[in-house]
Amino acid sequence: MTATALYGRELAAAIRAETTERAAALTASGRPPKLAVVVATADESSAWYVRSIAKAAGQSGIACDIVDLGPDAAADTIVAALDRLSADGSVHGVMLQTPLPGGAALEELAGAIAFGKDVDGANPLSLGRLAAGLPAHPPATAEAVVALLDHYGVELAGRRVAVVGRSTVVGKPLAHLLLDRNATVTVCHSRTVDLPGVTSTADVVVAAAGRPGLITADHVRPGATVIDVGTNPTPDGGLTGDVDAEAVVHRAAALTPVPGGVGPVTTALLLRHTVRAAADR
Amino acid sequence: MTATALYGRELAAAIRAETTERAAALTASGRPPKLAVVVATADESSAWYVRSIAKAAGQSGIACDIVDLGPDAAADTIVAALDRLSADGSVHGVMLQTPLPGGAALEELAGAIAFGKDVDGANPLSLGRLAAGLPAHPPATAEAVVALLDHYGVELAGRRVAVVGRSTVVGKPLAHLLLDRNATVTVCHSRTVDLPGVTSTADVVVAAAGRPGLITADHVRPGATVIDVGTNPTPDGGLTGDVDAEAVVHRAAALTPVPGGVGPVTTALLLRHTVRAAADR
Repeated sequence: MTATALYGRELAAAIRAETTERAAALTASGRPPKLAVVVATADESSAWYVRSIAKAAGQSGIACDIVDLGPDAAADTIVAALDRLSADGSVHGVMLQTPLPGGAALEELAGAIAFGKDVDGANPLSLGRLAAGLPAHPPATAEAVVALLDHYGVELAGRRVAVVGRSTVVGKPLAHLLLDRNATVTVCHSRTVDLPGVTSTADVVVAAAGRPGLITADHVRPGATVIDVGTNPTPDGGLTGDVDAEAVVHRAAALTPVPGGVGPVTTALLLRHTVRAAADR
Repeated sequence: MTATALYGRELAAAIRAETTERAAALTASGRPPKLAVVVATADESSAWYVRSIAKAAGQSGIACDIVDLGPDAAADTIVAALDRLSADGSVHGVMLQTPLPGGAALEELAGAIAFGKDVDGANPLSLGRLAAGLPAHPPATAEAVVALLDHYGVELAGRRVAVVGRSTVVGKPLAHLLLDRNATVTVCHSRTVDLPGVTSTADVVVAAAGRPGLITADHVRPGATVIDVGTNPTPDGGLTGDVDAEAVVHRAAALTPVPGGVGPVTTALLLRHTVRAAADR
């Protein structure tokens, strides 16, 4: 058996086509959509990601301001920038890029992003509303996992899904999105005992731990679907996921590549959220 | 084997003793703590619960105003009452009792409870902050489950816990509290396929589905700990849990009684939250 590759490009292209159309309509009506990305790091893979967002935004007709506060920015400075952008009527989406200086937590500072502009679901209010089943922008990465499963017709209702990783930006919001879809959800993490024993009972395994090669063939039931959210930098400047793809590809029925799986969908959804936020104003 | 009964009274008494002391200190300093409970239902078991809160508050030296808006109150009227109480400096805790008229969702209306007074963690902001690991009052019932497990020395780190029920007031916040304690958490619900197959792999089973007798011996691994959050009214005016206690008592190592397990701890924690909210002002 060789797993089907679940590429994200087709779905991303469809989302971006719709988003480009909506962006053009907004611009024509005098409300050109704009995303602001606040950066306070010199991290290279972070810079690569932000450039890819700006490029994709440009291709969709969405302005993208990168507000670079430098890697030594104080928490107060970051919050002040978020406050200013939240109050700026020409800005429709605000995103705070990680990592943050001095080990500041995203969830601490992101409360300063106005709820309506919180297009990457980083404000704890967005997470709480998502958990409560109320309208909110989910974090784009978490939503991309579900969108990709839907695109490839992977059933979720009544299925067992193991989410490996309990971050505030992926694992936790994803658990809520999957519960909304009637999956039975297990959240695993670094302190889980016998991880293969837990994940190998799942129909769908989502790896979102940020540890290269964590998920091996032993972790996967034959025929399961495996979604790799990992984006770990490699020494040669590339990206590798959390899944040992060479081993898992012979066991899973379907597997997302890294890069080219969840990532393109994430960026497309972030831009969709931005035009929605602009339209809702 | 017969399960040990995990009574809540001892823990509840300890929490209430500390709370009574703090309430007396607050009153002595001219800030008598006050809880307001907004009620908009004629439901009898709800009325019983609210009376029990008021009685316990009185015994701890906490004022408790029951604001009864009647079973036909409009959502706007309820929100206006929550706004008024949120702005009232003499009130430190605000709680909205369910059920609500016309099928209104608690999470929709509870956003009107000021975050600092949200002593039962019903505002989606509280849930989001809880999920993000930031300070917030957890829903008292969810916190009571963890407090009772701690009180009886039940280890959580690295253990498998199955939560049956995905409500915004119990199952979902409880999942976050358990993740914070490094448990591997599975959230099950009415759409879970083969519920006994899932729950019988768990070291701890928490039943919070609101379905009498849902959890039978088949759902429980021999030696597991079972926490029954169910409070289902019986025809004779009593309460029964979600667990078939007569069957499970011969299989579990430990089991909470209903009533007398989680319930007393829940009320005690609600009052502790109220004095904390009063002290934080």
